[in-house]
Amino acid sequence: MQVTPPKDLERRVLITTVPFGEIDPKPLQLLEAAGIDYVINPIGRKLRETELADLIGKFGILIAGTEPITATVMDQAPHLRLISRVGIGLDSVDLKAARQRNVLVSYTPDAPAPAVAELTVGMMLSLLRHISQTDRGMRNGIWQRYMGRRLAEITVGVIGVGRVGKRVIQHLQGFGCPILANDLQPDFEFGQPYQLRWVDKETIYRQADLITLHVPLTPDTHHLIDTSELALIQPQAFLINTARGPVIREQALVKALQTGKLAGAAIDVFEQEPYSGALVALENCLLTCHMGSCSRDCRSQMEIEATEEAIRFLKGEPLLGLVPETEYSLHR
Amino acid sequence: MQVTPPKDLERRVLITTVPFGEIDPKPLQLLEAAGIDYVINPIGRKLRETELADLIGKFGILIAGTEPITATVMDQAPHLRLISRVGIGLDSVDLKAARQRNVLVSYTPDAPAPAVAELTVGMMLSLLRHISQTDRGMRNGIWQRYMGRRLAEITVGVIGVGRVGKRVIQHLQGFGCPILANDLQPDFEFGQPYQLRWVDKETIYRQADLITLHVPLTPDTHHLIDTSELALIQPQAFLINTARGPVIREQALVKALQTGKLAGAAIDVFEQEPYSGALVALENCLLTCHMGSCSRDCRSQMEIEATEEAIRFLKGEPLLGLVPETEYSLHR
Repeated sequence: MQVTPPKDLERRVLITTVPFGEIDPKPLQLLEAAGIDYVINPIGRKLRETELADLIGKFGILIAGTEPITATVMDQAPHLRLISRVGIGLDSVDLKAARQRNVLVSYTPDAPAPAVAELTVGMMLSLLRHISQTDRGMRNGIWQRYMGRRLAEITVGVIGVGRVGKRVIQHLQGFGCPILANDLQPDFEFGQPYQLRWVDKETIYRQADLITLHVPLTPDTHHLIDTSELALIQPQAFLINTARGPVIREQALVKALQTGKLAGAAIDVFEQEPYSGALVALENCLLTCHMGSCSRDCRSQMEIEATEEAIRFLKGEPLLGLVPETEYSLHR
Repeated sequence: MQVTPPKDLERRVLITTVPFGEIDPKPLQLLEAAGIDYVINPIGRKLRETELADLIGKFGILIAGTEPITATVMDQAPHLRLISRVGIGLDSVDLKAARQRNVLVSYTPDAPAPAVAELTVGMMLSLLRHISQTDRGMRNGIWQRYMGRRLAEITVGVIGVGRVGKRVIQHLQGFGCPILANDLQPDFEFGQPYQLRWVDKETIYRQADLITLHVPLTPDTHHLIDTSELALIQPQAFLINTARGPVIREQALVKALQTGKLAGAAIDVFEQEPYSGALVALENCLLTCHMGSCSRDCRSQMEIEATEEAIRFLKGEPLLGLVPETEYSLHR
C-alpha cells in the first residue's frame, strides 16, 4: 500500500510502550537516522485512557503498547495517521474507530510468539512441580518437599492453536505428553507429526490435566472461562493464561482456586493491569506481570519491526504489517 | 544372585525415607502381604548419622533415603543384610564399609531420572524468564517486567550425559537450542539426532549461557564447580544443580552470585540438607528442597522398586537392583 508522506505534527512519533530501546537501542537509532522527532512515554508505565488522550494531540504516529486506544482517545488526536502496535493483541485498539478516522493500524504478530510460548512451558513445569511455592518456602526457612506431577504423565489441553499455541505444542514434543487441541480452524497438517487430538472445548475442560489458553481477546473469547467452564474442569487440573486477562472471568477463577475446584493456575495477564487483586494471596496461583513477550530477542524484534513500519509510513513506502481485514470483522 | 533367607531381626525392615507410601500405598501393601515387619522413620525427616545409628540395631533391611549410612552406622547394625536405596545416588552410602560387612546394596537408578529431568527444564525456564522472582514481587505489590532470555537463543551446557542428562537433552529438543555436552564416556550414538556437540568441561564453562550438572557425587566430582571454574563461566550465564550439593562449593557459588560473576542459579541440592544458608537471601538464586525425584509417578515407582527388592531378598529370590561393581570403584 502506497501512502503519501505527511507533514509537521503528522510526522511526530509518540512511543507509549515502555521500556523501549533499552535492551537494544536500534529502534531509537533508526528513528534518529531517519530524522524523525519522537517522544517516549513520560509516565514510564502503561498509560490509562485519559493519560493517552492528554498526550496524543500533537502526534501523527503512535508506536503503541497495550494501553487503550479508544474512540475517545482518537477524538483528541487530529493528526494521528498510524498506530504501529508493538505486539500482536488488538483488543486495546478500537479498530472500527480507527478506520472511521482513516487511521491505519499495523502490528507485529509473529515477533512475540516465541517468547510467550517458552514462558507458558516454564509456567507449566513450575506449577506441576511447585517450584515457586517451594522457593518462597525456602526463603522463609521451610524445607517442604512437594510431590508434583510430570508433563509426560498428564494430558495437556491447548485452546487456540495459532502462532503461540503451535509453538507450545512443538516445545512439548520432547516431553511426550498427549495433547488435546482446539481451534476454530484446526490446522490438521500442522498437527500431524504430534501426539495431538483435535477436540471441542468441552472435551478439553473435562479431560485435560492442564489447560493453556492461546486465543486472542475478541467479543467471542471474552470470559471464555467462567464459572460454568471451571465447573467442568477436573479438580486436579491446572489452568494457564498467557493470552489476555479478560479471557478468564477473574472472580470465578479466584473462587475455583479458593474452593479446591482447580488445583492451581498460572496467570500472566489480568482484567486490570497492573494487577493487585485477590489472586496475589493464593498459594496455588503463580503470577507474572504480562511478561509473555519479555525476552530480550523477541522484545527487540517487536520494537524494531514496529519502528520500521513507522519509518516506512513516513517515507511513503509500502507498509508490511497492516492488520488484516479478518481482525476488523472479529473486533465488531 | 541367590541369597539364603535370613531370620528374626534380620527379617525386620526399617524405612528411613519419608514420606513413604503416601502417594501410593502399594509398597506398604506389598510388605504387609508378604508378612514383613516394618517400621517407618519415626522422626519424619532426613535422619542424621547418630539418629540412624540409634535406630538401626534391630533391623536387617534398610529401605533408605539419602541419610548417611556410614561405617559408624553399620557398626551399630549387627543384623543388617541389605540396604535398598530409594533413588540413585550412592554418595550417602559407604559402599566399601558395606562390602566389608557383607551388607548388600541395591538401588533404583532409573526411576528418579524422568522427574529430575523435568524439574531441571522447569528451573531453566524459570531462571531465564525470572518467573519465581516476578511471582514474589507480585505478592508484594510490585509489577516489574523482567526482560529475560529464550532457550532457543542460548547455548546450554550439560555436564554428565547419563540417565538424567540424556532426558534433559531430549526435552530441549522441542526448543531448538544448541547443546554442549560433556561426559566421561560420551554416548555418541545417543547424541546423533540432537543439535549437540561433545566438548570438554572447560569449553562448557567458557561458552555456555546455561550450565546444568547431572553427574553423580564421587571423589572426582566433589567441588567440581569451585572458584576457578566459576571464574571461567560467563557473567551472563546461569548454573543449575539438581545432582548433589557437594558437586558445587557452595561458598564459591554464593560469592559468584553476590558479585555478579554469575547471572543466576537454580539449586535443588545442598552441602547440608535441610538447607538454610546464605543462598536463601539471594534474589538471583532459585531454590527447591531436593525435590528432583518428587513427582508422584517417579516417587511411587522408586518406593515400589526398592520395596520389591527387599521382598525378593527376604524370599531368597534373585536381586534385580544390586549396585554394579563400577560404583564400588568410583566410591574409593
